[in-house]
Amino acid sequence: MSTRKKSKIINDPIYGFVNLPGDLISDLINHPYFQRLRRIKQLGMTNLVYPGALHTRFHHAIGAMHLMTEAIDVLRSKDIEITNEEAEAVAIAILLHDIGHGPFSHALEHSIAKNISHEDFSALLMGKLNKEFNGKLSLAIKIFNNQYKKKFLHQLVSSQLDMDRLDYLKRDSFFTGVSEGVISSDRIIKMLHVKNDELAIEEKGIYSIEKFIIARRLMYWQVYLHKTVVAAENMLVNILKRAKELSSQGEELFATPALSVFLKNNYTKKDFEEYPGLLETFALLDDYDIFASVKIWMHHKDKILSALCRSLVDRKLFKIELQKEKFTTSYKQQLIQKAGRKYKVSDKEAAYYVTSGEIENSAYKTNIIKINILMNNGKVLDIAEASDQLNTEVLSKTVKKYFICYPKTLNTRP
Amino acid sequence: MSTRKKSKIINDPIYGFVNLPGDLISDLINHPYFQRLRRIKQLGMTNLVYPGALHTRFHHAIGAMHLMTEAIDVLRSKDIEITNEEAEAVAIAILLHDIGHGPFSHALEHSIAKNISHEDFSALLMGKLNKEFNGKLSLAIKIFNNQYKKKFLHQLVSSQLDMDRLDYLKRDSFFTGVSEGVISSDRIIKMLHVKNDELAIEEKGIYSIEKFIIARRLMYWQVYLHKTVVAAENMLVNILKRAKELSSQGEELFATPALSVFLKNNYTKKDFEEYPGLLETFALLDDYDIFASVKIWMHHKDKILSALCRSLVDRKLFKIELQKEKFTTSYKQQLIQKAGRKYKVSDKEAAYYVTSGEIENSAYKTNIIKINILMNNGKVLDIAEASDQLNTEVLSKTVKKYFICYPKTLNTRP
Amino acid sequence: MSTRKKSKIINDPIYGFVNLPGDLISDLINHPYFQRLRRIKQLGMTNLVYPGALHTRFHHAIGAMHLMTEAIDVLRSKDIEITNEEAEAVAIAILLHDIGHGPFSHALEHSIAKNISHEDFSALLMGKLNKEFNGKLSLAIKIFNNQYKKKFLHQLVSSQLDMDRLDYLKRDSFFTGVSEGVISSDRIIKMLHVKNDELAIEEKGIYSIEKFIIARRLMYWQVYLHKTVVAAENMLVNILKRAKELSSQGEELFATPALSVFLKNNYTKKDFEEYPGLLETFALLDDYDIFASVKIWMHHKDKILSALCRSLVDRKLFKIELQKEKFTTSYKQQLIQKAGRKYKVSDKEAAYYVTSGEIENSAYKTNIIKINILMNNGKVLDIAEASDQLNTEVLSKTVKKYFICYPKTLNTRP
Amino acid sequence: MSTRKKSKIINDPIYGFVNLPGDLISDLINHPYFQRLRRIKQLGMTNLVYPGALHTRFHHAIGAMHLMTEAIDVLRSKDIEITNEEAEAVAIAILLHDIGHGPFSHALEHSIAKNISHEDFSALLMGKLNKEFNGKLSLAIKIFNNQYKKKFLHQLVSSQLDMDRLDYLKRDSFFTGVSEGVISSDRIIKMLHVKNDELAIEEKGIYSIEKFIIARRLMYWQVYLHKTVVAAENMLVNILKRAKELSSQGEELFATPALSVFLKNNYTKKDFEEYPGLLETFALLDDYDIFASVKIWMHHKDKILSALCRSLVDRKLFKIELQKEKFTTSYKQQLIQKAGRKYKVSDKEAAYYVTSGEIENSAYKTNIIKINILMNNGKVLDIAEASDQLNTEVLSKTVKKYFICYPKTLNTRP
Repeated sequence: MSTRKKSKIINDPIYGFVNLPGDLISDLINHPYFQRLRRIKQLGMTNLVYPGALHTRFHHAIGAMHLMTEAIDVLRSKDIEITNEEAEAVAIAILLHDIGHGPFSHALEHSIAKNISHEDFSALLMGKLNKEFNGKLSLAIKIFNNQYKKKFLHQLVSSQLDMDRLDYLKRDSFFTGVSEGVISSDRIIKMLHVKNDELAIEEKGIYSIEKFIIARRLMYWQVYLHKTVVAAENMLVNILKRAKELSSQGEELFATPALSVFLKNNYTKKDFEEYPGLLETFALLDDYDIFASVKIWMHHKDKILSALCRSLVDRKLFKIELQKEKFTTSYKQQLIQKAGRKYKVSDKEAAYYVTSGEIENSAYKTNIIKINILMNNGKVLDIAEASDQLNTEVLSKTVKKYFICYPKTLNTRP
Repeated sequence: MSTRKKSKIINDPIYGFVNLPGDLISDLINHPYFQRLRRIKQLGMTNLVYPGALHTRFHHAIGAMHLMTEAIDVLRSKDIEITNEEAEAVAIAILLHDIGHGPFSHALEHSIAKNISHEDFSALLMGKLNKEFNGKLSLAIKIFNNQYKKKFLHQLVSSQLDMDRLDYLKRDSFFTGVSEGVISSDRIIKMLHVKNDELAIEEKGIYSIEKFIIARRLMYWQVYLHKTVVAAENMLVNILKRAKELSSQGEELFATPALSVFLKNNYTKKDFEEYPGLLETFALLDDYDIFASVKIWMHHKDKILSALCRSLVDRKLFKIELQKEKFTTSYKQQLIQKAGRKYKVSDKEAAYYVTSGEIENSAYKTNIIKINILMNNGKVLDIAEASDQLNTEVLSKTVKKYFICYPKTLNTRP
Repeated sequence: MSTRKKSKIINDPIYGFVNLPGDLISDLINHPYFQRLRRIKQLGMTNLVYPGALHTRFHHAIGAMHLMTEAIDVLRSKDIEITNEEAEAVAIAILLHDIGHGPFSHALEHSIAKNISHEDFSALLMGKLNKEFNGKLSLAIKIFNNQYKKKFLHQLVSSQLDMDRLDYLKRDSFFTGVSEGVISSDRIIKMLHVKNDELAIEEKGIYSIEKFIIARRLMYWQVYLHKTVVAAENMLVNILKRAKELSSQGEELFATPALSVFLKNNYTKKDFEEYPGLLETFALLDDYDIFASVKIWMHHKDKILSALCRSLVDRKLFKIELQKEKFTTSYKQQLIQKAGRKYKVSDKEAAYYVTSGEIENSAYKTNIIKINILMNNGKVLDIAEASDQLNTEVLSKTVKKYFICYPKTLNTRP
Repeated sequence: MSTRKKSKIINDPIYGFVNLPGDLISDLINHPYFQRLRRIKQLGMTNLVYPGALHTRFHHAIGAMHLMTEAIDVLRSKDIEITNEEAEAVAIAILLHDIGHGPFSHALEHSIAKNISHEDFSALLMGKLNKEFNGKLSLAIKIFNNQYKKKFLHQLVSSQLDMDRLDYLKRDSFFTGVSEGVISSDRIIKMLHVKNDELAIEEKGIYSIEKFIIARRLMYWQVYLHKTVVAAENMLVNILKRAKELSSQGEELFATPALSVFLKNNYTKKDFEEYPGLLETFALLDDYDIFASVKIWMHHKDKILSALCRSLVDRKLFKIELQKEKFTTSYKQQLIQKAGRKYKVSDKEAAYYVTSGEIENSAYKTNIIKINILMNNGKVLDIAEASDQLNTEVLSKTVKKYFICYPKTLNTRP
C-alpha cells in the first residue's frame, strides 16, 4: 500500500511548476504557522513604489525550497554525498527559515516586540513545530543552527550565496519589474560544488558571481533602500510608536485583538518562553492586523496619529532627503520647530513628523562568509581574489547614506 | 512658463515603464478613491490556488490605461481622428472603469450592499470626482456611458475586445503563472482599426483573435472559475451572510468601523444617493477590512461563523464537486443533514456548510457586441464568420457547470 | 576507473541548460552526420519573413531530446516502468528523427533526389550509424520504427503530441517572435501519462491541449504556410528545376561538387542502397551548397535561371495570390503568356515564372493518431470528445487554399 | 496626395514589432547591399559554442535603428531639439553603420583584403548608396563621420553607450541564451539626456550603467572571447591564409567566383577606389562563400588545408590554452615540431597547426569617450566618478590574456 499522498504542485510565475517533495513538507506548508506567511508581504511597503511587489513570504519560502531541491540534485550529480534524510532536512530548513517574520518586519521588527528578532521567533516556532511533528524536524533545526557536521548544508540555507538570496533576488526583481536585478539562479546552481565541506562555485562561474554581486547591489539601491520606501517605512514605525505611546497613556485604540496585546504590553524574549499562549498570539499577526488598524486610526482623535495614518494610507508620503553626510542637529531641530508651529503641537510631539537615520549597503561582506571559487587547478579562492576585475577593497566598501524625512509642506529647499 | 509637473512613470513588470499622460490623470491616480484600489486584489481569493495572484485593481487600471494610449497612437497612425480631449477622456474612462469595485467583489458584490452593482458605485464615484475636478471628467463619463457620438471610443473601454480585457488577461496570466493564458496585446493593438465608427481588427489579425478567444476560455476554466477558488469564494459569501445574520440578531461582532456599518444595515441604491456620507464609508472598504474581520471571527463564539472563518484563513477549504447536471435536492439535503449531525446544529444552520450553485462561461458572446474583422476587401465580418475554423455555434455555446461545496469530513464519495 | 567523460552541457536560449545524458549521445552529436544539421535551417526560407528564424535542425533535435528526458522523468514518477536502456534508446530515437533532412527540405525534398523522402534518408543514415556504433542503436531504431513492444515510447517520438512537435512549436515561435504560437511544453509534459500502453494527457490538461491545437494552427498560417514564404520556396523549387534542366542539356553549372552530383543525375532509392558512397555525398549537402550555388547562378547566362536567382537573393520575391478556389487554367495561362512576352521566352520557359499549387492545414487529424485524455474516472477519451467546446468536425476540417505566384511586374490586379 | 507607401513592420523576437520609419529607410533595407547582411552572421563562428547564435548583421542593424527611434522620442520629450531631417539621418547612420562588414569579419577582417577595415568598406558603400539615392544620405554620412554640428547625434551612433552596443548586447545575449548579459536598453534609453551637446544619463540611471558595464564585460569573456570561439576563429584565419598561399603558388582552388578574386589577389584600398567593380565583387561576399568553399576544401589534396577544413566543419576544434603570461617561444616551437613530426610536414607548414596570440577586454575605456552622468544638481560627471562603488582604476584596467591553439592530439598536458 502506497503511503504517499497525491503529489502536490504549486504554480509559480517564476519557476513554472514547483513540486513539493514529500508528505512532511506538504504537511508543514498546510500548517497555520506557514499559511500565515501568505498574508505577510515579502517587501512590506515597497508596493507603494513598485505596485507589483505584493508577493509574500509564503511564495518566497516555497521558491527557495524549490531551488534547494535543484541544488541538491546538482551536487549529487557531482558525487557529493547527501542522504535522503539530509536532503529533506535541508529543504525543511530553508522552507522554515523565515517562519518567524512578523508583518512589515523590515520596518517593525523591533516595534511590535522589543529586543526579539525574527530569528528568535523562527527558533521558537520551529521548536513548537518540531514538537507537533514528533521530532521530525530535529535534523532540519540542527542544519539551520549550523550544528550539523556537514557544514555545506547550512551554507545552502544561510551564506552569501544561499538559496534564500537566490530566490529573493530573482523574485523581488520579477515582481517589482526591475529587470536589471535578474540573476541567473539556474546557472549559479549548475556551478555549485563542495570542496573541504564548503560550498564553492566552479571557476567558469566567476562572471556569474560578479554579476550576482552587482545585481544585488543594484537591487539594494533601486528597491530595498529606495528612498520613497524608506520614507514610508519610517512613517509606519512612527505610527506604531505613537499608537503604543497612546496605549500606554490609557488611550483606547481600535485595533485587532492580537495587535492590541502587543500595543499594550512590552514583552521580552523571556515572556515568550514562559507563556506559550503569547507565541500563539504573535502567530496570529499579519499584514491585515497592521494595515486594518492603521486605516481605522486615520479617524482617531489624536491628530498626530491620524495625520500619519492618513498620509500613509492615501500615499501622501513624506519627503526624504538623502546625503552622504550626517544631517546636522540644527537642521533637524529647525524642521521639528517648523512642524510644531505648523501642526500646533509640542516639540516632543513634533518629532513624530521628522525622522532621520542611516541606510547602508555593502555589496559583498568579506568579513562574514566568503564566496568560494573552485579553480580549475583544484584550489579554492575567494571571489575577491579570483576575479581579475573586482577587488576586495571595492567590493567590501560599505556605502552609507543618511536620510531625513518630513512632511512635504515643511520643505524649504528647491 | 510650463505648468506641466514632472512626468510620472510607474513600473510594471508586464509593460516595463508606464508613462502617466498628463497632470489630470496623475491627480486622479493620487486621489484616495483611486489609491484605495491598491488594497483591492484583482482576483480576490485566487491567490489561495495561485500564490502569485496578489495584483490589485490599481495596477490593472493603470495597465489598461497604458494599453489605451497605445491603441490611440495606432489608430491615429491610421488616420482615425481622435482629438487630444478625446484621447485624455478615453484614458480617464478606462482608468476609472473599476473605481466602484469593493473588496473581493467577485464574491461579495451583492453581500456588502444588496442590489447595488459595482457599476453603480463606479457611476456614483465618477460623479463625485467630476464635481471635485470641476467637470473635467464630463467627456470621460459620456464615453464611459456610451453617450458620446464616436462609438468606437466607448468600445475601447467596454466591448469584447476592450483595453480592460486585454490588460486583465495578460496581467492575470502573468501573476498566476498560467502562461498559456498569455495574449498578444501588442499584436492585437497593432491590428486595431475603425470602420463605420466601430472598432475592427484587420484581416491578418484573425488568428490572433482566435487565439485570444481560446486563451480567455482557458483562463476562465483554469483561473477565474477554478473549482478551489469557487469553493473559497462561497465560503466567504457564507461568512458574510452569517455575520450579517448575527448582527441583525443584535450580536456584537468585532469588525472594522466601515464594515460594521454595512453589517448592521441593508442599504439600497437610494440610500447612497440621499446620504453622501454613505458613499464615503463605502470608499473606505478594502480587502483589509474584510480579512482582518474574518481573522478575528475565527475566535467568535458562534461556532458556525468561527468554523467557516478558521477554515478559510487556515486554507482548509471545502471540497467542491463539479458536474454538468444539477445536483439533486435530495443529495444536497442529505449533506445538510450530515452536517447538522456532525456539527450539532439545526438544519437551517447546517445550510451554511453546504452551498451549491452554477458557474458558466461562454467563450464568445454573439448576442452582445461582436468582434469585427476588417477584411482586405474593405468589408467587415464578424470573427465567427471570418474564421475558417471556428463557427458561431461552437463559439457561443455557453458551458454551464453545477457545483456543490461542503466540508471534506462530510465526504462519502471516493 | 570512471568511463564517463565529463558531463556535457549545451546552452539553449529556450530551456537554459541542456544536459547531454550519457557518452553515447555525446558521441552521436559529435558525429559529422549530426554536426551537418548545424548547417540546415529548421525553417528554410522563413527568415526572409521572420529574420530571427535561422535556428537549425541541430538545435531542434537537441531540444526535443531534452524534452524527452523530462517526459521520461515525469512518466517514471507516475510509476510507468521505463528501463535505463529504453530511456537512452528513446532519447536517441528523437535525437536522430530528423537526421535525414536535406537542405531546405520543406521545399526541396523531392527536387534533389526524386521519390526519396527525408524519412528514407533518416532510415539509411541511422542504419549506417548503427553499424559504426556496433549495434548500440538497435533499440532506438526499433522504437523509431514502432516495432518495439511498448508502443507509448514510439508515441513520444512520433504522434500528435510527440516531443518533436512540442519542441518545434516552441522553438519556431521563439525564433520567429510569433509569441502567440508559444505552447506550454512544461505543462503538457507534466500531464503526460500512459494508459493501455498509449500516451495520454490527464484530464486537467484538456485546456492546455486545446490551446496547443490552436497554437499549432496559428503557427501554420502565420509561419509555416506564410504566403511570402510559400512564394520564396516555390522560387527555390523552380531554380533547382531549371538548374537540373540546364544540366541535363549539358550546360555547365558552377555548383559545389556535392550538389553537382545531384544536379546531373536522378538517383532512386535503389541507387542509394547499392552505392554507399552516394549516401556519403548526400551527407555533405547543406544550406551552404544550395545558397552558394544560387548566388553564383545570379550571373549565369541563362536568363531564366539568373532572373530567378537574383530575385531570391535580393529578396524581390514574387507576388502570391491566395484563395479558397482553384485558380482557373485560363488565368494561369494568361499570366504565363504575359511573362513570355515580357521576358521574351517561350511559353514553356515562361512557366518558370508562374507557379501554382495548394497548401493545406488541418488543426487536428482524427484519422491518424488521437490525443488521448485520461479522465479522472479512469476512462480514456479522445480530445475531440473530451473537450466541451471543440468538436471533431471543426477540428478535423482540413483548410485548403490555392495559390499562384508570379513576378510583381506582371500584376494587373489592384 | 500621399506619397507614403504602406507602413512596413519587421518582426523581432526581442522587441516585438519594429516599424520602419519612412520610405527612404525601407528602400535602403531593400537594397542588395543591405540584404546581403541577411547572410552575414553577427557572431561568426560563435554558434559552434552557442548553437542559437545565428542571428545576422541585418537583424542587428534594424534593431539598432529601432532603438534609435526610441531614443529620439525620449530626447524630444525632454525638449532636446531634433528636426525630422536629423531624426531620419541618424536612423540611417545607425542602420548603415555595419554595411561594410564582410563574412566572419571578426576573424577575417584582414584576411580577405589586407589593410582595409570594415569601416573603410562602410564608407565606400555609403558613398556609393548616396550617389544612387541622389545625395539623400549626405546628412547621415556627416553624422556618421562626426562632422555634424550636433555632436550628440554622432554619439548615439558611436560611443560607449550608442544604440549599436545597446542592441548587440541585448541581441547576442538573447540568441546565445547567456541571460546574464541582458541589459535594460529600455531603462537606459529612458534615462538619456543631452547636456552641453553631449549625451548623458540622468543620475538615477547610475546603477543601470554599472550593470551595463558589468554585463558587457561578462559577455566579453563568456561569449565574444570564449576560448572555443577563439580557437575556431583562428582555425578559419589559418584556412584562408593557407588557401591564399596555395592560390599564390598557382594551385587551383574550388571557390565561389567572388571569393576566388580575393584569394588570388591582394588588393589595397586604392584598388577599391580606382576600380568600382571591385567593390561590387566584395559586396557579393557573405558567409555562404566562405563556408561553402571551406566545405569543399575538406577534400583538397593539400593535407594541411583539408585537415584544417575538416576539423572546422566537423567541429573537431583545436585545443586552446589561455593564461595571463605570454607563452614562451620554446613552448610554441616544441608544439610546432610535434605537429611537424605527427603530420609529416615541414616546420614552416606545421605552423598552420599552432597559433598563438592575445585577447583583451577593457570593461570601460576611460581614454576614449566617457559615459556622462547628469547629476540632479545639473553637473555632469563621468560614470567612474559618479559611481560610489566602481572606480576608474578598476574599470579601465585592461585584462589581457594570451592563448595558444593546436590539435588535441598534440596535447601533453593533463
